[in-house]
Parts: sequence; C-alpha cells; structure tokens
Amino acid sequence: MKLYSYFRSSASYRVRIALNLKGLAFETVPVHLLKNGGEQFSDAYRKLNPNALVPALVDDSAGDEVTLTQSLAIIEYLEDTHPEPALLPQNAADRAYVRSLALSIACDIHPLNNLRVLRYLVHNLNVSEEDKNAWYRHWCEQGLASIEAVLSQDARVGTYCFGDTPTLADCCLVPQIANAQRLNCDLSRMPTLMRINDACMVLDAFVRAAPGNQPDAE
Amino acid sequence: MKLYSYFRSSASYRVRIALNLKGLAFETVPVHLLKNGGEQFSDAYRKLNPNALVPALVDDSAGDEVTLTQSLAIIEYLEDTHPEPALLPQNAADRAYVRSLALSIACDIHPLNNLRVLRYLVHNLNVSEEDKNAWYRHWCEQGLASIEAVLSQDARVGTYCFGDTPTLADCCLVPQIANAQRLNCDLSRMPTLMRINDACMVLDAFVRAAPGNQPDAE
Repeated sequence: MKLYSYFRSSASYRVRIALNLKGLAFETVPVHLLKNGGEQFSDAYRKLNPNALVPALVDDSAGDEVTLTQSLAIIEYLEDTHPEPALLPQNAADRAYVRSLALSIACDIHPLNNLRVLRYLVHNLNVSEEDKNAWYRHWCEQGLASIEAVLSQDARVGTYCFGDTPTLADCCLVPQIANAQRLNCDLSRMPTLMRINDACMVLDAFVRAAPGNQPDAE
Repeated sequence: MKLYSYFRSSASYRVRIALNLKGLAFETVPVHLLKNGGEQFSDAYRKLNPNALVPALVDDSAGDEVTLTQSLAIIEYLEDTHPEPALLPQNAADRAYVRSLALSIACDIHPLNNLRVLRYLVHNLNVSEEDKNAWYRHWCEQGLASIEAVLSQDARVGTYCFGDTPTLADCCLVPQIANAQRLNCDLSRMPTLMRINDACMVLDAFVRAAPGNQPDAE
C-alpha cells in the first residue's frame, strides 16, 4: 500500500496510526503542501485525488489498484478489509459513539484550522496573524472542550476514548491534540483528553505515526 | 425515535433523508438555532449533546434510550440497525467511495459554511456581508467542483452518486445543493451533481425531508 501523505497533515496522521494499529505495511509517498506551489495541486496528484487534499491511499494488495481518499473513509475501509484488531466496537450504539467522537474532530475542529482555510483568512480577508491564531485556538479549544464534556460523563471511557483498546476515536484525537499543542492551545481544562493522549503516546503504533518520525519530516 | 432538528440545518436534513429512505418513523423536536439566543445552547439540549449542534437522534425503539449525535454517525447507526434498504454498497472499495463523497461534503464544505462560523467571521473578524458571502461561495463551489470531477470520471455513477439506488452520498449531496442554491452559488459547471440532485428530488423520501416541509419551517 502507498500512502500519499504530508508529515504534518493530521488527516494523514490518523491513517498512519490506523495502518500501524492493524499491522499493515505501507510506503509513504510525500506530498509537500507548501513547496512547489503545493504539490497537492499537481496534475499527477489531482488525477489521484481531485480534492487536492492529503491523504490518499493506494491499495494494490488484492491485485487491482484501489485509490481511496478522505481519512475516515480510508480507516473504515481498513476496518472492512482487515477487521482485526478492531478499531470500532461491535455494538451499534457503541460504534455510533466512537464514530461521533471521530467526526466531532474531523468535521467540527479540523476543517476550520486546515492550511487552505488559514491561507484564505490571511490572503483573501486580510486577517492579522494574531486574529488568525485566535481563530485557530477558538475552534480547537471549543471543539476539544465539547469532547471533554462528552467523555467526562460517559461510562464507556477507559484507558482510551472507548474502553481499553484504541479505536477510530483515538486515531483522530491524538493528531488533533498534537496540532493543538503546536499552536499553543489551552488544554488545561481537558484532563480526560490529555490522559488518553498520554496513554496512546506510549504505544508504538502512535509513536511511529507521529509527524516527527515521517520520512518527509523537517 | 426523536430527531432534534432545525429545518434549515443541512446535517439534520441528511438524517431526515436517511430515516425516510429506511422507512423509519420519527418525531421532530425543533431546536431553533436563532431564537432565544440559540436553543442549541440551552442546558437541556447541551445535556443531550454537549457539542450544541443539531441533529441529535434519540432511539428508544429497543427499550433503552440511545442518544446519538453527528449526522454521519447517526446514518451509519441506522445502517447497522436497519440494514435494508442499504445506504452503503457491499464491496469495501465501493463503501469507501460512497463514504469519501459524503465526507467531502461533511468535512470539506459544510463546516466552513456553518452558522457559527459565519457568525465568527462577522462578529469577531469584522468581515463584510459581501466578503462573508464570497467565503461561503468559495468553499461551496470549490468543494462541489471537486466532487463533480470525481463523479464525472467514475464509472460507478448511475442515476445516483453510486449506481441506481440512493446512498449515504446522496443523503449528503442534496442538502448541500439546497444550501448552495439558497446562497446563489454558481452550479453551472456541475452537470453531474445537478442531474443526481434532480433524480433525488422526485423521490418521496427526499421531498418529505426538505427544509420547507418540516414542522418548524418558516
């Protein structure tokens, strides 16, 4: 499998964690989001993914090449094709709970703090560096506080977001916390999230997936 | 089942379509996002959904009450609990394709044009009405153009986004097109999307789910 990825992309980071948790080998194909006017906009990459976003996963393990985009769709595909170890619970309500945590990050936090959005704020709306960073922290802190509120009152929380094995929710949480820390967000009111993050970051699957450990890390 | 919903919320609209396609009866509990300072911020609603976003679905059909949030997690739950008619294909690669289309809308378009985000632009960043509308159209048109590019070159497209029965992707596409039309986005370069939208809008499940046909419509 080939993962088209940028070391700092948190959507790519999610997929790297899932691949590692499932013990699946993959080759990283770096797509630099800043150099060469953004390599994601190249004709070659756009042919693979017209959205011009990373990650994309090309799976040739079953013969025919399958090109997949959207981090959560890719992780669900890995779950469908390599069910063990499971990243989703068996029970429908529990699966919905884990998916809702993942989507709270993937829909309610990350899209607002994406590189292309921050660029639009600065270049098209003349937003100052200070206001841009305040925007970033606002959505990140508000979104994580909501998830903290959910987790702190749900009996299903264990060592990880759901029970005592990592799930799709943890695959999304850890990259978001890494982004939050890089942008100096206030995480002091999120003890549950930080405890889970710490529990994940002692696992080899999470450590190997971290931005600093990628071949294209700077 | 009770659906906490706002008639104009496109995330609520997605769930209404899915419930209708599966033939599941539900009671709408209106949550007005503008009146009373935003009913989604009330203590009662926040207890149900700490994210203070609609929709939320309360399913008491199996005895115990299950509260679900995040539109895509809710639809996946309906798929898990009421598999027929299926809103996802059987094949893993096809499922990933349908999910990626849904996520391209739910992650890459809709979050940027959400009410709370538009409010932040105006109130916190002093963005003009004109620039706010340009922002809306930018993300909507760019995102839909990417999906048009995907669909126009994929042999799996049929009457709907995937084949000849509606899927999760159509549940997301139709509400996004409705938003785009309401905000006067340019949809002239999206013939495939518009053809699919038209095919959906002759189906009773989609018509009954439309904002104008909700009990809280204004």
